[in-house]
Amino acid sequence: MKGNVIVGQSGGPTAAINSSLAGVYRTAKDRGAGKVYGMLHGIQGLLQERYIDLSEYITNELDAELLKRTPAAFLGSCRFKLPEIHQDKAVYEKIFGILDKLNIEAFIYIGGNDSMDTIKKLSDYAIVTGHPTRFIGCPKTIDNDLALTDHTPGYGSAAKYIGTSVKEIIRDSFCLEYEKGLVSIVEIMGRNAGWLTGASALAKGEDCAGPDLIYLPELPFDIESFSAKVKELLARKSSVVVAVSEGIRLEDGRYVCELGQSIDFVDAFGHKQLSGTANYLASFIAGEIGCKTRSIELSSLQRAASHCASRVDILEAYQVGGAAVKAADEGDSGKMVVLKRLSDDPYQSGTEVKDVHKIANDEKLVPREWVTEDGSYVTDEFINYVRPLIQGDVSPVMVDGIPRHLYRHL
Amino acid sequence: MKGNVIVGQSGGPTAAINSSLAGVYRTAKDRGAGKVYGMLHGIQGLLQERYIDLSEYITNELDAELLKRTPAAFLGSCRFKLPEIHQDKAVYEKIFGILDKLNIEAFIYIGGNDSMDTIKKLSDYAIVTGHPTRFIGCPKTIDNDLALTDHTPGYGSAAKYIGTSVKEIIRDSFCLEYEKGLVSIVEIMGRNAGWLTGASALAKGEDCAGPDLIYLPELPFDIESFSAKVKELLARKSSVVVAVSEGIRLEDGRYVCELGQSIDFVDAFGHKQLSGTANYLASFIAGEIGCKTRSIELSSLQRAASHCASRVDILEAYQVGGAAVKAADEGDSGKMVVLKRLSDDPYQSGTEVKDVHKIANDEKLVPREWVTEDGSYVTDEFINYVRPLIQGDVSPVMVDGIPRHLYRHL
Repeated sequence: MKGNVIVGQSGGPTAAINSSLAGVYRTAKDRGAGKVYGMLHGIQGLLQERYIDLSEYITNELDAELLKRTPAAFLGSCRFKLPEIHQDKAVYEKIFGILDKLNIEAFIYIGGNDSMDTIKKLSDYAIVTGHPTRFIGCPKTIDNDLALTDHTPGYGSAAKYIGTSVKEIIRDSFCLEYEKGLVSIVEIMGRNAGWLTGASALAKGEDCAGPDLIYLPELPFDIESFSAKVKELLARKSSVVVAVSEGIRLEDGRYVCELGQSIDFVDAFGHKQLSGTANYLASFIAGEIGCKTRSIELSSLQRAASHCASRVDILEAYQVGGAAVKAADEGDSGKMVVLKRLSDDPYQSGTEVKDVHKIANDEKLVPREWVTEDGSYVTDEFINYVRPLIQGDVSPVMVDGIPRHLYRHL
Repeated sequence: MKGNVIVGQSGGPTAAINSSLAGVYRTAKDRGAGKVYGMLHGIQGLLQERYIDLSEYITNELDAELLKRTPAAFLGSCRFKLPEIHQDKAVYEKIFGILDKLNIEAFIYIGGNDSMDTIKKLSDYAIVTGHPTRFIGCPKTIDNDLALTDHTPGYGSAAKYIGTSVKEIIRDSFCLEYEKGLVSIVEIMGRNAGWLTGASALAKGEDCAGPDLIYLPELPFDIESFSAKVKELLARKSSVVVAVSEGIRLEDGRYVCELGQSIDFVDAFGHKQLSGTANYLASFIAGEIGCKTRSIELSSLQRAASHCASRVDILEAYQVGGAAVKAADEGDSGKMVVLKRLSDDPYQSGTEVKDVHKIANDEKLVPREWVTEDGSYVTDEFINYVRPLIQGDVSPVMVDGIPRHLYRHL
């Protein structure tokens, strides 16, 4: 490379997105790039000319290792959709002006569907105007809902955390006995795709029965059949653990988390208060069955748990970052790096690049055949798919009992 | 020892309670005990003659190591208060009949305040009737609210998990920028004692500013002053993270988590729905300031997170279990093992036994001088107290990407 590189992070944070950033930095430096800039808060920050020189933060190998172990977006993230080129050319002129000023040869954007849309538009603009900067996307999302790639960096670590935490919740739930039993409902992220919720099945093993029921958002949720299943389970065991996606919906399309709203709960300031999906179901089951219930939301813990990251995931994220720079250096533009599964046993993967026009805004859902017929669990195919992605650990660098992260002076 | 030993677990589960169980088992075997029985679901299960022979489960050193790494009560737990001796002698006759049948020399009970009450009553009954069985209590509670002991096994691991998770939440919160800022409210266990909530300050370090505000239940919570502080912080930074105890109360004694109830929110079945403390405050702040807010409950994850256990805690829990057996073998009864801090730097601790009559039902709270004058943070003394208790890790035994536990066929 002769010029400089700029890299940004976009969308929801993950435990692996900074490993991709470390991969971009290392490969850019190895291939002779001048400066490696990091845009602060993605393309939105770049428009305000907010960026840093990454070499000020990654001064040695230890810094790079810390960065790989630091959750959430080191550079800051944004949710920002570029206008269509014909709608607002000025935005593009501004961005390309900044790129020219910084002598940018390669623009790497780490993110999900929206970020790939950004890569698509910027590379289209470059083609139309004959601009030499090359634009490559790096996949990232815990949701694992990007098309064309076998899986997305960030998903494996979130899946490992979910499997581990659900197993600990199951242990915890069996401790105390209640006369009519205990039903624990665990709410997991994923508005439309059930990849994360299905990963709760990873808790299952010789030493653990796993969750009793798993409900993904891909299929309509039938609250009566759910309640009947719970009743049946309580007749056999004292503790029932259910994993539900935050996005489950009834046949008629209403979100389960909206059902509590029908009774017009507003707080002291007149704001409608959203009770969560698990919260609503826990209260529903308590009312129907009269047993003790509790709801647990894995919340943002599940996307930021670097202390429980998957080694496969962190290494693949790093590799994908490097592959993005390599692709740009070799002349590619308007592409996204994807992960290809080469074999399952032993698990092997490699990177390829795909045209970003084929990817943007497509949502990859869990295939119907990977969910049991009655829709209340995932199949072995699902588990075989995710199991290799959670293998191995990345030991946190512990300082005084707490994991150390790489940080940016704000 | 000539006879047999029986051990039980009681109260809320922790990440360290099974390490004490492993310590009891190992020391009892080392000192020549015949059988080591485990009562299932504590004294309540014993009354139904539910118990196991622990040697069927701990068959080798690896089993013992797995047990130390298994969260929640391996034997099952209970919340059961024995009646006073003069109120219901029959219960005592039944228990002692079972102990005689099993030829029990030492009865070890691992638990919190209520469990020490059980030890007190059983040892009193033994003294009154001249019965030879000896009764020793082993402290256990994540709440750290037991008197006379420097700290309780279970607390260190929960504190380590809280410090780690709050730090990850802080990283996550700084990622996305919102026009009016983001306020994240993290709810931590502890109805009356703030030991766990204060541990959120462990997130603070060179690489992290820590939570911005910390509210313990020991002091009255002033919602107006809280709101003013948040406003002030938002003027300076885009993300504010607040740690609150689930048990914070207003000056007039009302729990913050009850405030949402004043508007009579009942679900479809007529059950009053408790919105949590963090939930309520998030909605309050959103209403007052108009910024984005979110609430995160660490829920039962914080008491079962063996994957993030403290080595100091797990080893001390093991040591305390052994010390209980030793005390019984040497003729003590009606005692609880306590941890004594011998020095801070380097941290050293030892065990002692104390008369259980002096302990039972006393709740140890965070001293006023360990909270800042305005009540919105803990002092360095607090951090210096807890820091040694979270040191070191216990590497989980990973099988196929997920921690392995020791399990009991149900």
